Amino acid sequence: MSKPTLVVGGGPAGLAAAHALASVGRDCVLVDKAERLGGAPILSGYAKLVPSGEWASDAIGGMVERVIGNPRVDVRLNTSVTSFDGEPGNFRVGLANGDQLEANAAILCTGFTHFDSVNKPEWGFGLFPDVVTTTQVEQMISSGQGVRCPSDGRKPERVAILLCVGSRDRQIGREWCSKICCTVSANIAMEIREELPDCHVYVYYMDIRTFGLYETKYYWRSQEEFKVKYIKARIAEVTSDGKRIIVKGEDTLVKRPITIPFDMVVHAIGMDPNVDNRTLAGIFGVELETNGFIDRKDTYSAIGQTSRAGVFVAGSATGPETIADSIAQANAAAIASLGLLEQAV
Amino acid sequence: MSKPTLVVGGGPAGLAAAHALASVGRDCVLVDKAERLGGAPILSGYAKLVPSGEWASDAIGGMVERVIGNPRVDVRLNTSVTSFDGEPGNFRVGLANGDQLEANAAILCTGFTHFDSVNKPEWGFGLFPDVVTTTQVEQMISSGQGVRCPSDGRKPERVAILLCVGSRDRQIGREWCSKICCTVSANIAMEIREELPDCHVYVYYMDIRTFGLYETKYYWRSQEEFKVKYIKARIAEVTSDGKRIIVKGEDTLVKRPITIPFDMVVHAIGMDPNVDNRTLAGIFGVELETNGFIDRKDTYSAIGQTSRAGVFVAGSATGPETIADSIAQANAAAIASLGLLEQAV
Repeated sequence: MSKPTLVVGGGPAGLAAAHALASVGRDCVLVDKAERLGGAPILSGYAKLVPSGEWASDAIGGMVERVIGNPRVDVRLNTSVTSFDGEPGNFRVGLANGDQLEANAAILCTGFTHFDSVNKPEWGFGLFPDVVTTTQVEQMISSGQGVRCPSDGRKPERVAILLCVGSRDRQIGREWCSKICCTVSANIAMEIREELPDCHVYVYYMDIRTFGLYETKYYWRSQEEFKVKYIKARIAEVTSDGKRIIVKGEDTLVKRPITIPFDMVVHAIGMDPNVDNRTLAGIFGVELETNGFIDRKDTYSAIGQTSRAGVFVAGSATGPETIADSIAQANAAAIASLGLLEQAV
Repeated sequence: MSKPTLVVGGGPAGLAAAHALASVGRDCVLVDKAERLGGAPILSGYAKLVPSGEWASDAIGGMVERVIGNPRVDVRLNTSVTSFDGEPGNFRVGLANGDQLEANAAILCTGFTHFDSVNKPEWGFGLFPDVVTTTQVEQMISSGQGVRCPSDGRKPERVAILLCVGSRDRQIGREWCSKICCTVSANIAMEIREELPDCHVYVYYMDIRTFGLYETKYYWRSQEEFKVKYIKARIAEVTSDGKRIIVKGEDTLVKRPITIPFDMVVHAIGMDPNVDNRTLAGIFGVELETNGFIDRKDTYSAIGQTSRAGVFVAGSATGPETIADSIAQANAAAIASLGLLEQAV
């Protein structure tokens, strides 16, 4: 029982798994390919998180700090797992930096990859500097710079947020819904309105998926308190008249073509499977589901187990996921790994 | 450390919490007011579960069996907690049957209450026998009886499923979205089409919220493989011509009134806060959030904690939730309760 548990990935899920294990007296090794912990919320500079409204740097930054300061968590940055052999209770792990470790189990918290908007060229990203992504707007807000048009630094007077960029889109091989972009976009819309009260913000959508308790806090609040406007639309293309960005499409509620100029257009980018998933599947001997996310072996009774005994998975490695549910799943994987090892003793 | 952990509620979350604790060598007492374990999926007779497609009686029934057979889980049925005093590591618990227990922590897995459709009278439930709820259709399927019109036992040729009954509805004080009804309804629609291939099934919706990976498996599959039809509509009323049920409303995509007769109309009922929540809040000294669900103290770093130290919460007690996420949260609460007690030692 003295071998540590391997946790791969230092985002919210990996941080939660490592903390949970340490909190019950187990050692773990937390491996992340990046040079710092925190995953997407920290590395991509998210602003205020859904649904708590805390700054990512506080909420997830706090999770980073308690892991870094924990003597039971051995953090290995700037490296990745290159080999993984053995069986539950007795795995041998090779790292890219040449280190060799032993582990009793592994928890894959390897997350997702943000959709790259250049793969949706007809919507203007990469062509027009004032077409940006939700991640870029998060960075504008979290950096303190404020929401500004990249082309000339002016404050936008009209902003469009386009939902489902890289989601629910068969044309580009991404049929899944990315689950949280609707709510994140409503949140960003409110943050823009808060910083720039004279700016008009429109959200173009297919279906608004502010599920559960997000309905009041994001969908209704964004409309009623922050006057964000929602347009159910099919978008044809995003162009420019040289000065402004033009969004062309069809309002599917009034069945009419709509062409509206904006100062800034924001792509609500989806969650792709981590680009490393095929490599990870090979190294860890786990199966991927049809879209390329890491597959779960079981839905209810053995949640968090992959197709390989002793290897668990949590969070957006398994599909689009919220931060809170990623954390819950990581805790579940942690206790499942403990349970497996109890059985083995 | 010899005191057990109290788990309140024997649905998927409570079963998962009890199993998780037992699997790492901790004793627990599982209290449920019903005469058997399983919670809503078992007591309400759910059919095939989202997203695994397993029968509830197998998937959740299996979770019941492994808990009943576990010597570390002390199951107390037909009773409830009436008093709860003390502090983390040292709580005194009184049960309605007169028993007194000690516990080191408590995990509230007290679930939700199905919305009662009589509270939406203009949609015909309680007036017309062939207006039923999703739960009743689940029971028709899981019992092996098949989907039949309650009025005369005939096989319906046309079925309408109305989404958001008791959800997203300010008129009746339920503003939240119940999160899983869209996907459950798509699942039921496919099950009806599978049993009755000649039956036409229509789903009336505001927004289709088959989030994440449910998009392909439920939204697209129900349309393409099972020919389920989706109508974005605002429903005015549900009446009867004496023979059939008439659904009147407006198709909000073509902006026209639609009046369609059906043999059976199904209310996709939402998730209300457990009717016992005010009582539970008083007994356990925990706060409720604005809609009456049990509030979480923290979203990320201490997931599962309530406003009272040593009392944790998981699953649909906190808001509309899927079974899988309820289970993940219950596991998270279990390991959090262990972590708290490690600190206390």
